[in-house]
Amino acid sequence: MSVEKYDIVIVGAGPVGLLLSTCLARWGYKIKHIDMRPEPTLTGRADGIQPRSLDLLRNMGLKRAIMAHEPAKVYEVAFWDPSESGKGIHRTGNWKSCPSFIDARYPFTTLLHQGLIERVFIADMEKYNVQVQRPWTITGFKNDGADKEYPVEVNLAHVDGTAKETVRAKYLFSGEGARSFIRAQLGIGITHKDPIQHVWGVMDGVVRTNFPDIKMKCTIHSDAGSIMVIPREDNMVRLYIQIASSTDPDFNPRKTATTEEVQNFAKKIMKPYEISWDRVEWYSVYPIGQGIADKYTLDERVFMGGDCCHTHSPKAGQGMNTAFLDAVNLAWKIHHVESGFADRSILSSYESERKLIAENLLNFDAAYAKLFSTRQPSAGEIGSATATAAEQQPQEENQFIKMFKESCEFTSGYGVAYNPNIFNWSPEHPAKSPLFLSFADKTTTQRTGRIMTASTVTRVADANVVHLEQEVPLNGSYRIFLFGGKPSKTQKAIADFAAGLAKKTSFYSAFGHLDSDKVSYHERHNPHSPFFTICTIFNAAREAIEVRELLPELIARYFDHVYADDIWDQRVPDAKAAAHAKMGLSEEDGGVVVVRPDGYVSAVVKLVEGSGTVDALNDFFAAFSTKSLGGGEKASL
Amino acid sequence: MSVEKYDIVIVGAGPVGLLLSTCLARWGYKIKHIDMRPEPTLTGRADGIQPRSLDLLRNMGLKRAIMAHEPAKVYEVAFWDPSESGKGIHRTGNWKSCPSFIDARYPFTTLLHQGLIERVFIADMEKYNVQVQRPWTITGFKNDGADKEYPVEVNLAHVDGTAKETVRAKYLFSGEGARSFIRAQLGIGITHKDPIQHVWGVMDGVVRTNFPDIKMKCTIHSDAGSIMVIPREDNMVRLYIQIASSTDPDFNPRKTATTEEVQNFAKKIMKPYEISWDRVEWYSVYPIGQGIADKYTLDERVFMGGDCCHTHSPKAGQGMNTAFLDAVNLAWKIHHVESGFADRSILSSYESERKLIAENLLNFDAAYAKLFSTRQPSAGEIGSATATAAEQQPQEENQFIKMFKESCEFTSGYGVAYNPNIFNWSPEHPAKSPLFLSFADKTTTQRTGRIMTASTVTRVADANVVHLEQEVPLNGSYRIFLFGGKPSKTQKAIADFAAGLAKKTSFYSAFGHLDSDKVSYHERHNPHSPFFTICTIFNAAREAIEVRELLPELIARYFDHVYADDIWDQRVPDAKAAAHAKMGLSEEDGGVVVVRPDGYVSAVVKLVEGSGTVDALNDFFAAFSTKSLGGGEKASL
Repeated sequence: MSVEKYDIVIVGAGPVGLLLSTCLARWGYKIKHIDMRPEPTLTGRADGIQPRSLDLLRNMGLKRAIMAHEPAKVYEVAFWDPSESGKGIHRTGNWKSCPSFIDARYPFTTLLHQGLIERVFIADMEKYNVQVQRPWTITGFKNDGADKEYPVEVNLAHVDGTAKETVRAKYLFSGEGARSFIRAQLGIGITHKDPIQHVWGVMDGVVRTNFPDIKMKCTIHSDAGSIMVIPREDNMVRLYIQIASSTDPDFNPRKTATTEEVQNFAKKIMKPYEISWDRVEWYSVYPIGQGIADKYTLDERVFMGGDCCHTHSPKAGQGMNTAFLDAVNLAWKIHHVESGFADRSILSSYESERKLIAENLLNFDAAYAKLFSTRQPSAGEIGSATATAAEQQPQEENQFIKMFKESCEFTSGYGVAYNPNIFNWSPEHPAKSPLFLSFADKTTTQRTGRIMTASTVTRVADANVVHLEQEVPLNGSYRIFLFGGKPSKTQKAIADFAAGLAKKTSFYSAFGHLDSDKVSYHERHNPHSPFFTICTIFNAAREAIEVRELLPELIARYFDHVYADDIWDQRVPDAKAAAHAKMGLSEEDGGVVVVRPDGYVSAVVKLVEGSGTVDALNDFFAAFSTKSLGGGEKASL
Repeated sequence: MSVEKYDIVIVGAGPVGLLLSTCLARWGYKIKHIDMRPEPTLTGRADGIQPRSLDLLRNMGLKRAIMAHEPAKVYEVAFWDPSESGKGIHRTGNWKSCPSFIDARYPFTTLLHQGLIERVFIADMEKYNVQVQRPWTITGFKNDGADKEYPVEVNLAHVDGTAKETVRAKYLFSGEGARSFIRAQLGIGITHKDPIQHVWGVMDGVVRTNFPDIKMKCTIHSDAGSIMVIPREDNMVRLYIQIASSTDPDFNPRKTATTEEVQNFAKKIMKPYEISWDRVEWYSVYPIGQGIADKYTLDERVFMGGDCCHTHSPKAGQGMNTAFLDAVNLAWKIHHVESGFADRSILSSYESERKLIAENLLNFDAAYAKLFSTRQPSAGEIGSATATAAEQQPQEENQFIKMFKESCEFTSGYGVAYNPNIFNWSPEHPAKSPLFLSFADKTTTQRTGRIMTASTVTRVADANVVHLEQEVPLNGSYRIFLFGGKPSKTQKAIADFAAGLAKKTSFYSAFGHLDSDKVSYHERHNPHSPFFTICTIFNAAREAIEVRELLPELIARYFDHVYADDIWDQRVPDAKAAAHAKMGLSEEDGGVVVVRPDGYVSAVVKLVEGSGTVDALNDFFAAFSTKSLGGGEKASL
């Protein structure tokens, strides 16, 4: 009997599995996706979408569907502590969840229950004919290599045991959550960073209260206990209540509490304010400890991500967001290997990039918990931390504020920073051209391994004011942002750049479409290569840019990706060309910013006359692409 | 046999009928809505949503559904004329469709085919159990008063004659379009403003071209003829081609042309550029003349709106937008009469307000057509017209630029200005308090009968940054914007204002909920009265505003409608309280801006200690409400 073959088998239809599935479905992969639950999450569970994740969802074209559910938006966090009089609580401070020193398009956390988010992904996958098979579970797997192309055998079964399937796949992915069968089978251990375990109660419901900050995120400490308040869609509010801690003398990880007990507990904590419940939508008590998987993969065929790899407290609303970024990181790397662009060895960077972030998250989580449970900031401290950079008094930058600032950046998602590696250029990269610019040298503001700074420009083709960082959708392509400076100054450099790209052995042409004559006239993003989209930004007024006169044919083909850098930006008020200025590039001479398919900066290169700029990029891509580039030898990894 | 009774019978499910139906359905009216077409518009027809209309759709909560269709957005218009060399065409200028001197949230025209827009309304109506009955038509009607409450008898029939219905209604509305049975039955004539008639060809399709402005709105004049280009959703483009004019010696209003003839015509006009069609989605040829109905109603029971009342050229994309504003204008007036708030005599203001706008539109349309077909602006003229107010050189303000500016404001929808009447205060209004502020006196920037200026503030309850003008949805209520200035200065004035509102005979309390104990604890907009929502805006930092401590209980009940005026605005860069400044109110002392349910300013009143502010508003509302207010006599109309 012939066995059905898939590019990937994905187990678990929570955030990590669904985002991975959505990406790969769009890019044409054959997917078997199973979940042991009979239907998507109905109520409760994760709910916080951080600012950077919203950028990502928008880049996938899914933000509007999320926002159609009218989620709550959290712009500020308020801190409540015992009153000095000893009676009840009072507010001791508040701060922005994403202060203005972070250049975020959406400086708020979006709160929406996980099931609604899951359904947005599921609806998108279905457009590409991928359904989640429910309620099915995985019963076994082995990377036996019996089929070289599909080395992994996977055994699946209906949860009631009435049906079984055995399939083969190129990859197997576990998005199973904390209790992972796959991780257990692989014998991968969990390291507990913070030995303290907690039992949490969480309750979603509609309340009546005179507590003034009920529509904000709050941390309330009272002599009666502690509570976290998080607003939700549909006029709901979520309360997190710590029910037990392993530091308690009589700690029992199976300790529980009824709805009524938790409500009475909350009533005591929130005095002198009153609170009562119109209805409770969801209530759960669960023990949680910090943990991180020792490995994310053993063989680069069977991968894991999301809660399967890292668990932590729900306090900072990071779980789903980290899951999203795990998934997108793996998705484009699998795509680049399977489509013949990149060497299989790049798959090791999934673990090295994402495990570091999880470790940072767990360290942060432990510190955050400590911060919340020990010392409360005064209003004065907060004021200076939320001020803009220009207003800050350096002498006030104490340790607490520093940590707060760092954690704002981290929790918003903009602090995610991948270390230098083959994708994220540094002086240690095999590509050694002196034309690479760097944050360390102050020759650019863009940091490799970090998200590209947001900027607003005018699209020449239709005069639409657009967000440059969103112009290339999440389509698996590298984004080549050619900042063209003043057209009169860079004309030759751009012509030389185009000539360099046109050479058969360039990184760009070596991976051109195999059936280039079948490419649609209307293709906007990938007319020449599925792996690159070129955006050109000039320091000029829109009406002065005649795309087909100003640009060589190869670049003019990206007619919808030519922009005028003519929109004033409050963050660089004196700049004539704000996007150039925000990138830290010369407004006259421009430069080239290369961005990974997931939005993180790969490299920044000077734009020069001659072959230097393309030579530098050939060397850069040669470090991991499957072909030797630029006519020379393939650089070694 | 008992006859079914409806609040309103609406004939025609185009933009005007659908928007009227959507409003009245939400407000609980019983509606019979018919259309003679078997289904909504499939292709073509109207497609331009102007900036102000997008505000309106957002206020109805429908913008997101419109935008989900990824419409084209037109930010600029380009002008092409015969080259001086005598060969082909060249661009002679471009300008913004909504220049920066207009304070628009969405400074672009949204292009989407009418059928998709219709479906957004239909989906919303269905939530309120209103369906369009198709394909049905009206066969007769009479306002016979046989039933005092439902004076209009309406005869309806299936278009194939297989079924008939006779119903009674309080109102009958014709949204039938230019060929109106109802208008004909009423014997209402059409006045033709501009005697010139035109035959237009219009074609929607996907093209291939090297014409650089194919994604912008363009007017192309060549020696071979004239064409208008309008981008559309789904990579389509619409071409309007004038096929014949009544000024032609051999004019025939039934002149036609095949798809191929029009395409060949376009090819000649667009030389030296090339154009060809991948597909044509819609093609139509139709004669159009300017016309305006002499009356919009005879008896204030049978009303008409939209194309039924005014026809004009499609050049400025005004048809659907004028229809929307007809509908919303009528909707809240019917609602206020039927719910007992306003005197029946207010219904006469539907015609007086909307016919004036239609007349302005037709005058504009004639001038616009003339402008397009005679003199082309030079690039220099355009440059100064699109500059911001601060950059303008007054000496360059020639007649053309002046007309251009006026028409930009008008075509964007922000130029719609209703004359003074009972709703739009002026010194001639029965309310004579010296506390009324006015644009003429420069005591406020807000003009009665005009849309309230947009401003951005921070909502105190949840720290969300919001658009103040959108905070009260289109729910049929007047919007009382209480600008509170500095809380320390206005404390007594606000207390007195609240005390005045609380008096039984105030405009506010006289129309309180009849069953006030049944109002939900969670009601945000109308806790006290279905006719008023109060928004309070303070010149203070958000964290300094403790709603329940600062505000009297009556106003604090609008807990979700208290705002901090703490967001910097580029248009008033020196203001500490930008929203106050934009309204032209004292940042210290505030003031009260009363806005009609449709977003137009009714009156602006000084905020003073004592009873004066409420007295002024009592007099204002007494001019048309059904009760005597303020304890005095009812003012006469």
